[in-house]
Amino acid sequence: LTALHQQIRRTIRRHALCPPGSRVLVGLSGGSDSVALTFALRELGPSLDFTLVGLAHVNHRLRDTADRDEAFCRALASRLGLPIHVAACDVKALAGERRCSIEEAARQARYGFFATIARQLDATRVAVGHTLDDQAETFVLKLARGAGLSGLGSIYPRRGDIIRPLLDVSREELREHLRSVGETWVEDETNADLSNPRNRVRHDVLPHLEQALGLPARRAIARAAGLVGEDARWLDELAAARLPRLAEATSEGLALDADQLRNEPAPIARRILLHALRERAAGKEIGLEHVQTALDVLAGVSGGADVPGSRVELRGRKLVLLQ
Amino acid sequence: LTALHQQIRRTIRRHALCPPGSRVLVGLSGGSDSVALTFALRELGPSLDFTLVGLAHVNHRLRDTADRDEAFCRALASRLGLPIHVAACDVKALAGERRCSIEEAARQARYGFFATIARQLDATRVAVGHTLDDQAETFVLKLARGAGLSGLGSIYPRRGDIIRPLLDVSREELREHLRSVGETWVEDETNADLSNPRNRVRHDVLPHLEQALGLPARRAIARAAGLVGEDARWLDELAAARLPRLAEATSEGLALDADQLRNEPAPIARRILLHALRERAAGKEIGLEHVQTALDVLAGVSGGADVPGSRVELRGRKLVLLQ
Repeated sequence: LTALHQQIRRTIRRHALCPPGSRVLVGLSGGSDSVALTFALRELGPSLDFTLVGLAHVNHRLRDTADRDEAFCRALASRLGLPIHVAACDVKALAGERRCSIEEAARQARYGFFATIARQLDATRVAVGHTLDDQAETFVLKLARGAGLSGLGSIYPRRGDIIRPLLDVSREELREHLRSVGETWVEDETNADLSNPRNRVRHDVLPHLEQALGLPARRAIARAAGLVGEDARWLDELAAARLPRLAEATSEGLALDADQLRNEPAPIARRILLHALRERAAGKEIGLEHVQTALDVLAGVSGGADVPGSRVELRGRKLVLLQ
Repeated sequence: LTALHQQIRRTIRRHALCPPGSRVLVGLSGGSDSVALTFALRELGPSLDFTLVGLAHVNHRLRDTADRDEAFCRALASRLGLPIHVAACDVKALAGERRCSIEEAARQARYGFFATIARQLDATRVAVGHTLDDQAETFVLKLARGAGLSGLGSIYPRRGDIIRPLLDVSREELREHLRSVGETWVEDETNADLSNPRNRVRHDVLPHLEQALGLPARRAIARAAGLVGEDARWLDELAAARLPRLAEATSEGLALDADQLRNEPAPIARRILLHALRERAAGKEIGLEHVQTALDVLAGVSGGADVPGSRVELRGRKLVLLQ
């Protein structure tokens, strides 16, 4: 095994991504990440006792080169002797229908199709090609945009049946490996489009940071992102479990036990309020500033305050979120 | 009150930095942050019922301009009618003696002197001038250097008697305020020295990031840093409290209950191992990779492994850290 495949194997074992007997479907775009993922899983399957059962490709028809990408994926599948399933999807129409961004519509279409094909092939896992670069880029973007609390959560190695065995390796390592074994991939030219903030992080912000500090910062940031995400996930679970124990629905709204809330450690108290405010916000955006507003009312730093969906007031021993 | 002083007041109240009756000493370098801090506390004291009891300045004798800075601080104190205490300190000699960096020696000298003067003046709090810029810069530096777990912890609003009322305001806001009221400050010309990584983050990395993304990223990063630090601190406390319950000293080393450790949530299990490995490392550096190594042994992903200060092995139901 190459060092690269050893690392991917470690990631799979550490997070139990492919338990023995797993049947794995790979989401293949034709880009370097998912092509390298296909080769890695093909090589690691026998010793880890899982089976690569097929490939799934979504033709988003967004770019002129979409058909070229589809042909590349079909040819690769045929060469590897793997079944491939291809969906064509009008992402622009879908985005209009669902009132979401084209990026989000494409994501939904992709994961929806993968789930369908997985059922068809009795696959127990769907592997996708996110790398440590994706992890670092996402973290920096969220950080710069002001995410905090659960908003800073990272890309998970596993979420349900979706697994990401490449999260500890870099895009550049994967490309070097493909070059060294004489394999090719297709380039998604939209990745070079610097009007997209993620691409500016990838091609400008992170290289600049690494150069200014002389450090391999992407790897360090990706690792920190994974850990911060793991912390945040568990704290979110704790807070979600606590909320019902100190909340009471009343005719006026939701009443939280102020003494109990003050006794919670700060990371839990913040998240309890975040959950409570979100529940009442009926889809309106609740951010950190609203949580802080509610904490200020709780601490007596401010009197009542309005946040999206509620008016927050301290009434005796209750922090009430009024209709 | 200006919007700036309102924000500082909120920070003080949110974190209970100056309870009624507090006697506050200000650490004054003469730079814009600590000068603005002095004015802010002087204005906020009466309504928040705390007293500014004096200023403390350390002349590090590191720069030609050190005496100019001292004279500036003395003149400011005299104009404000506040007592000022000045220490001269040979930081280079101290760094040699303690075998630490000059920066670290200066820090130790400063906080040591502040504590002495605080005792002398019966001060209950020592206020220092860290801003949200310092918070953001520290976070980015740690992130790029690969800190994680507790290593990513932030600058605290309060640690013991030390308080940082400026953590939610930016250096630029403070300078604008000083300019608007006709006050000046001294510039520490070493802040422009780009051979120092922190200065590269301040003058190059963060401005570049903000420009590339068109976002006020410093404020967002500082806020996230505060929250991540708060999470990490509480998780560290939980793990430190758990460790003795599943560890047992044996003649061979330290034995941890493997089943219990596997049942801990990942953020706690990691930190328990970090504490345990550090205890045994006798000052040798324990990093995330060593924690991961021990977790791999626990999960059976690897057999025994050597980390600084210990050999880690799984023996029956115990994860043992051998001498």
